[in-house]
Amino acid sequence: MKNFSYFTPTKLVFGSDSIKKLPDLMRPYGKKVLLAYGKGSIKKIGLYDEVIKLLSDFEIYELKDIEPNPKYNPSVLDGVRICKENKIDMVLAVGGGSTIECCKAICGASYYDGDPWDIIIGKVGTKKAIPLFDVLTLAATGSEYDDGGVISRKETNDKVAYASELVFPIASILDPKYTYSVSKAQTIAGSIDAINHVMEQYFCKEHSLLTDGMCEATIKSIIKNVKIAINEPDNYDARSELMVCCSLACNGILSIGNSSSGWPCHGIEHALSGYYDITHGTGLAIVTPRWMKHILNDDTIDRFVSFGINIFDINPTLDKYAIANKTIEETYNLFKDLGSPMSLREVGINEERLSEMAHHIAINEGLENAWAPLNEEDILEILKNSL
Amino acid sequence: MKNFSYFTPTKLVFGSDSIKKLPDLMRPYGKKVLLAYGKGSIKKIGLYDEVIKLLSDFEIYELKDIEPNPKYNPSVLDGVRICKENKIDMVLAVGGGSTIECCKAICGASYYDGDPWDIIIGKVGTKKAIPLFDVLTLAATGSEYDDGGVISRKETNDKVAYASELVFPIASILDPKYTYSVSKAQTIAGSIDAINHVMEQYFCKEHSLLTDGMCEATIKSIIKNVKIAINEPDNYDARSELMVCCSLACNGILSIGNSSSGWPCHGIEHALSGYYDITHGTGLAIVTPRWMKHILNDDTIDRFVSFGINIFDINPTLDKYAIANKTIEETYNLFKDLGSPMSLREVGINEERLSEMAHHIAINEGLENAWAPLNEEDILEILKNSL
Repeated sequence: MKNFSYFTPTKLVFGSDSIKKLPDLMRPYGKKVLLAYGKGSIKKIGLYDEVIKLLSDFEIYELKDIEPNPKYNPSVLDGVRICKENKIDMVLAVGGGSTIECCKAICGASYYDGDPWDIIIGKVGTKKAIPLFDVLTLAATGSEYDDGGVISRKETNDKVAYASELVFPIASILDPKYTYSVSKAQTIAGSIDAINHVMEQYFCKEHSLLTDGMCEATIKSIIKNVKIAINEPDNYDARSELMVCCSLACNGILSIGNSSSGWPCHGIEHALSGYYDITHGTGLAIVTPRWMKHILNDDTIDRFVSFGINIFDINPTLDKYAIANKTIEETYNLFKDLGSPMSLREVGINEERLSEMAHHIAINEGLENAWAPLNEEDILEILKNSL
Repeated sequence: MKNFSYFTPTKLVFGSDSIKKLPDLMRPYGKKVLLAYGKGSIKKIGLYDEVIKLLSDFEIYELKDIEPNPKYNPSVLDGVRICKENKIDMVLAVGGGSTIECCKAICGASYYDGDPWDIIIGKVGTKKAIPLFDVLTLAATGSEYDDGGVISRKETNDKVAYASELVFPIASILDPKYTYSVSKAQTIAGSIDAINHVMEQYFCKEHSLLTDGMCEATIKSIIKNVKIAINEPDNYDARSELMVCCSLACNGILSIGNSSSGWPCHGIEHALSGYYDITHGTGLAIVTPRWMKHILNDDTIDRFVSFGINIFDINPTLDKYAIANKTIEETYNLFKDLGSPMSLREVGINEERLSEMAHHIAINEGLENAWAPLNEEDILEILKNSL
């Protein structure tokens, strides 16, 4: 096992009506709350009213319309401004990964006097942050249980990963009922996002029987439960297990002590959603099988073999390359059969900017140091094969 | 999934030479440190000297000779006295589970003006605690990554479980090299303790594909690695994986959302080591297979079947009871083949006090509400079958 430091101080408060614990959790941190949310789905499901009622003792300020792939301008900047102007005590993010990640950036940048972008890109380290709470409404990114987020800046097509131990949520309220109204397409994309999170940890050089088994358990659980949830959106058990799997999929516990893969599919996908604002999980569905195909070789094959045998029950007596190729096919079919778009053209991306994106990725994502190294040419080929 | 609140704010700092990070981790908490340890094995392996050297900036007070199955009198009482008299800022436990658990009690009771026993038994809630750090030297109890401990009071033969969110270690230093010198017998007992921790979470009514898989991965990893470690005590990878598995085995992550089993084997074993001061993991090795045999019935059999198929690769086409009985046999043989004592007589316990212990357990451990309920008669039968 590699040396590591593992730290997840967030309290996960899971289950039906767990939101009732929110006021007591928040009270020690003050009075003034920035309530942040997205385009209004929390109003449709009655969650907005529930939060307002529960927090009647608090002084509420609002930041709304946070975008998918949350934007530095206006959302982060608006949030920072509101926090500074009103001396906000804590932020409550109500929504999915985009809302929570946007709020992490707000929390981290609000005590800094200079340009907030300095904090986001890590030019200046985060020294102090506003305490963050969240109520999760989408099982996907795992942002409710980690210290990172991705912020987009349209002017530069940048998607920047921001992280600080100081922006772990204090507590995350996970009530599976809030995900009943998540659309089929978003349920699929969220689940594929989480499956890919686990794959990005599984396909690496140094791993253990412990981490392999935990990764496999998480993926098998997601596969089983997403199939149920897309047919029975209000199946409590399926939504529960999906929610918990997604929370664990991205905070490092599943790859504790492993070497890093370099997160290649995320590196590539960040450009797709950075340039075209497509849904992150959909981008991952498209890229992942093409990445697998591209990197399969004698050095990497053993990971494909164990993934295929343990996730897809592929016959272990087959030839290794037969198993590996079948593993890629099964991965593709899994995403396709769930109902995900499986080509860039389906989501409105053509060849026009592929070279530009490949160049951007090669410069910014460090994938030449990934477990299976990718240079600009490799990246372009993966993108072309994804068309 | 059941409602849950999951919170593990401890920072795990794992790997070779990770102790070098200790001074920086401790510095924000003050100057005055209570350094607590056991019978001196940390001096033999040079760890005591290393700690003293690293903490040369700090003011060190010492509590030594903490016992296995740590005692309220003298260890907890001495520790509380030293902390109060010297206004100790933080406690550093260097050792295994006993040392760490003793220190949790000390940390929790030192800000309380009344009888420390009130805090241990929960008559008075823990309101404030001295910050705790630890350097782990034994992979077993998982005390380095949870908020609980078991304290023995000889006068009353009590073993009391003490827990408070305030006594989670701030940071736990996990360097597998410190476990190279752990004896074969202690390595075996520690691993069986951890295996049983996982079993106590696995054998329950409500569980998920996620938690089943994580439990199975942990147990399979422990089995593989303890076999290596007892033959090659300084195998870094085996000691690493054992250490991390043990840390995860007892903090709730492996059974997140599960219903409780009631922890029956621990309930029974606490009396054995409370009355006879035997090694906890050895007591569990003896009790576990007898408990399994006693509770096997039509209601419980499915858990035996999945445990047997997934841990011991038992042929799934066999009759369910054949699988279940083979599972019990394999569990017994696993512990025996590792080299554990497998009967009470081997550890100096005869029939003399079995009835007294069964009565004590029935009154104190709440096992009539366990997943597989046990009354005093059941407990006595399990104990008799363990002779």
